Amino acid sequence: MAFARLGEIVQALGGELQGDPATEIERIAPLETAGPGEIAFLAQPRLRPLLEACRASAVIVSPALAEAVPAGCARWIVADPYLHFARLTQWWLRRMQPPPAGGVHASAVVEPGARIATTASVGPLAYIGAGALIGEGVRVGAHTIVGERAEIGTASLLHPRVTIAAGCVLGQRNVLQSGAVIGGDGFGFAPQEGQWVKIEQLGAVRTGDDVDIGANTCIDRGALADTVIGPGVKLDNLIQIAHNVHIGAHTAMAGCVGVAGSTRIGAYCTFGGAAMVLGHLEIADRVHISAATVVSRSIRQSGQYTGFFPLDENANWEKNAATLRSLHALRDRVRALEKKS
Amino acid sequence: MAFARLGEIVQALGGELQGDPATEIERIAPLETAGPGEIAFLAQPRLRPLLEACRASAVIVSPALAEAVPAGCARWIVADPYLHFARLTQWWLRRMQPPPAGGVHASAVVEPGARIATTASVGPLAYIGAGALIGEGVRVGAHTIVGERAEIGTASLLHPRVTIAAGCVLGQRNVLQSGAVIGGDGFGFAPQEGQWVKIEQLGAVRTGDDVDIGANTCIDRGALADTVIGPGVKLDNLIQIAHNVHIGAHTAMAGCVGVAGSTRIGAYCTFGGAAMVLGHLEIADRVHISAATVVSRSIRQSGQYTGFFPLDENANWEKNAATLRSLHALRDRVRALEKKS
Amino acid sequence: MAFARLGEIVQALGGELQGDPATEIERIAPLETAGPGEIAFLAQPRLRPLLEACRASAVIVSPALAEAVPAGCARWIVADPYLHFARLTQWWLRRMQPPPAGGVHASAVVEPGARIATTASVGPLAYIGAGALIGEGVRVGAHTIVGERAEIGTASLLHPRVTIAAGCVLGQRNVLQSGAVIGGDGFGFAPQEGQWVKIEQLGAVRTGDDVDIGANTCIDRGALADTVIGPGVKLDNLIQIAHNVHIGAHTAMAGCVGVAGSTRIGAYCTFGGAAMVLGHLEIADRVHISAATVVSRSIRQSGQYTGFFPLDENANWEKNAATLRSLHALRDRVRALEKKS
Repeated sequence: MAFARLGEIVQALGGELQGDPATEIERIAPLETAGPGEIAFLAQPRLRPLLEACRASAVIVSPALAEAVPAGCARWIVADPYLHFARLTQWWLRRMQPPPAGGVHASAVVEPGARIATTASVGPLAYIGAGALIGEGVRVGAHTIVGERAEIGTASLLHPRVTIAAGCVLGQRNVLQSGAVIGGDGFGFAPQEGQWVKIEQLGAVRTGDDVDIGANTCIDRGALADTVIGPGVKLDNLIQIAHNVHIGAHTAMAGCVGVAGSTRIGAYCTFGGAAMVLGHLEIADRVHISAATVVSRSIRQSGQYTGFFPLDENANWEKNAATLRSLHALRDRVRALEKKS
Repeated sequence: MAFARLGEIVQALGGELQGDPATEIERIAPLETAGPGEIAFLAQPRLRPLLEACRASAVIVSPALAEAVPAGCARWIVADPYLHFARLTQWWLRRMQPPPAGGVHASAVVEPGARIATTASVGPLAYIGAGALIGEGVRVGAHTIVGERAEIGTASLLHPRVTIAAGCVLGQRNVLQSGAVIGGDGFGFAPQEGQWVKIEQLGAVRTGDDVDIGANTCIDRGALADTVIGPGVKLDNLIQIAHNVHIGAHTAMAGCVGVAGSTRIGAYCTFGGAAMVLGHLEIADRVHISAATVVSRSIRQSGQYTGFFPLDENANWEKNAATLRSLHALRDRVRALEKKS
Repeated sequence: MAFARLGEIVQALGGELQGDPATEIERIAPLETAGPGEIAFLAQPRLRPLLEACRASAVIVSPALAEAVPAGCARWIVADPYLHFARLTQWWLRRMQPPPAGGVHASAVVEPGARIATTASVGPLAYIGAGALIGEGVRVGAHTIVGERAEIGTASLLHPRVTIAAGCVLGQRNVLQSGAVIGGDGFGFAPQEGQWVKIEQLGAVRTGDDVDIGANTCIDRGALADTVIGPGVKLDNLIQIAHNVHIGAHTAMAGCVGVAGSTRIGAYCTFGGAAMVLGHLEIADRVHISAATVVSRSIRQSGQYTGFFPLDENANWEKNAATLRSLHALRDRVRALEKKS
């Protein structure tokens, strides 16, 4: 079984080691289940009892909790254990699954005029269109499509079966999960006597550096100008970003979120799962939208916003929902009572 | 840089030109940003100030607003500028990106018995099943799958990575975005002692002419009869259409909408993003459902319908949501007060 | 036209036949439209009038309703007609579309070290990674990807264009629809000064036997341990299952449902379309969540739970929604009135 020595981990990632650097680590594991050969982390002080019962070979821990680590378990002491855990996962993946050597798989189709950096790899049955540009260290997964004139920035990772449509431009170190569709047509039609006349979508999609895009997430190309995803933006799975949307730097969205056309979202925002943002709105920086909330107006002020119907036993919900349909009338009745009293 | 002369545009699409027909147009641009070499449009009278400040080489404008166009900017005067803008985008795309010549890419796999019209094109790594029929002028994108016995109507455009399952039939001039799945199995199971026994889905999907289907949208095949999408229907991305649904002509749905099984939706309806329609319902013609609204009963009457919890600051929402859970009791308390007073 | 004799159907599937076993059945059809050469079923006693008017060649019917079947229509009498209908569809599909012979299509790419059972079939342009295991009788559709070291259990059916990422393990008789992505990265990031540091997802996805997964549905791999889908679970299209989720046996979810990370769901639950379950919750067995309901807290008690804003005409909704934003104040006003009275 593959393993790493605790000493080389701490040397690579920093922090103080209290314990034997020769300790063999075979796996990273949750604190609840970690045992010999495994390393765990403790990020939340309230989980201290789990720590005290821990049988892992090593734990990533803050100085304040270091003394709660049982004897026999090495301590890797760092200021922010969760952050060091994240860095450990990255180090671990590179160590255990080294990236493929550069080169184009024999079954891939590369059109004339595509430029592929020598350190980039193109997987089986991938397709690279004419004039596309694949940067240094980029990994293009099996079955992934990079359309004509599209550009993929240095060190980006396109998992298998990603679609980058013609002319779209990704920044450096982007990570795209399978099924993501970047640059589908925006949903634009002019009405004509009840029917719909297609507005061809002539813009593209541009992403900044360090953008992550989840499985089966869609980002539509702009109608005339581009749809723009800022640097450091993180999008989970099954998200819909409509044409002409702008998303500010380091904003994160959980799964199933939808953003309608031409909305501009600020930086450092977060959106809970299945939140839905209507079109042509402006959302300020550092706005936090709860899950399943409909954003139906612009938000100028940083803060946390919520709007969903609270769950209840079905019978209660039915009574309350029925009453809700005459809530306005109920208010009038209260007003009438107030006048009388 | 590629360009078109203003005169040839107006000649092709109709309307009156006031200005130099030799004007070179390099791009279509939004009114706010358009500059020399660009053409813009004005559809909303309230944007007249933007028009007066416009630096574009030409503007598409209605007769009523023609005099507000600055000198030095050519006027293309038409009754409906937005509609002409739509047609201009179509003309532009054909001009700048002529469709591929007919033919099957060497890397595509075509099963024996498939019939492909001579003017159709089949892209790299596409798959055409046995007995499939690809009509005249159809473009099948890279990696797209057309299952056995499926039929694609004349002049349809299947973008890269579309899936048309066995036996499904698309009308003429359909446009499907990447990741769309047409003809997956409907979700049908018979319960047996708490477990689920699969009902094989023996119907297919049929679409009318001029249907657009968005990226990663799913339309399931019918259980016994077919799921039917009427002519001119426009579906955005990440939409779920369950088995046996019928959607009437020219109905449009924004992203993330879901329609459960066997529901029948009328013609000329619109559905805002993430609206959800339960199963076995009937929706009349010209019904308009707001975004994020749950349609839990049949709607017989044309009109606009809405139902979502209004967004609020989180603290306010929490108080109101808590109160909502005893709304019915609150109504009883008002009733009691009314009796007393 | 292909057909089956009624006698051989009943012999294969059990029950009592009243009628001519030589009757030719060409199609299974809905009771409303079934005519000569077709077989229908009646599962709901309230549809008896349809039965009495039925022109089908045969009907699957319960003993209690057998006498309502018109003369000239054969009766296939069984205890549970809906269940027998389900089994008939399975029998019919096997009869009319026999599964492909084992073997690997010439255009598929199979990496060295993959093990493919001799009775398994691998379709055109499919990709099987190094060390993958394809069990007996498995059908791998066109363009489907099975990542390195992934395992597909006996008799599973992967429709065209399914993605199974590296190291994921499917049970026996799984059925996956096109576009499903199993084993994309979970959405895990550690915050660092407002930015996000990726937590590499080192777990996988494991499914039990008899799991169905719909089109474009995503199940993310676990962060450290695995995401686990229990036996007999049925997931419809466009569902998002986040990392570390556990779903208990025989639970079913309709389209567009989302389940956030680390939530544990019991057995025999059902979720209506677009229900959304927040993260780190526990849902007991036999919990039934209505469509479009947000599950924001753990549920310990079996039962039916609901929470969505009731649909209304837009004008009424606007008034009630506005009032809802001061509902808590309204309660205080009622309380004040009560004190006075």
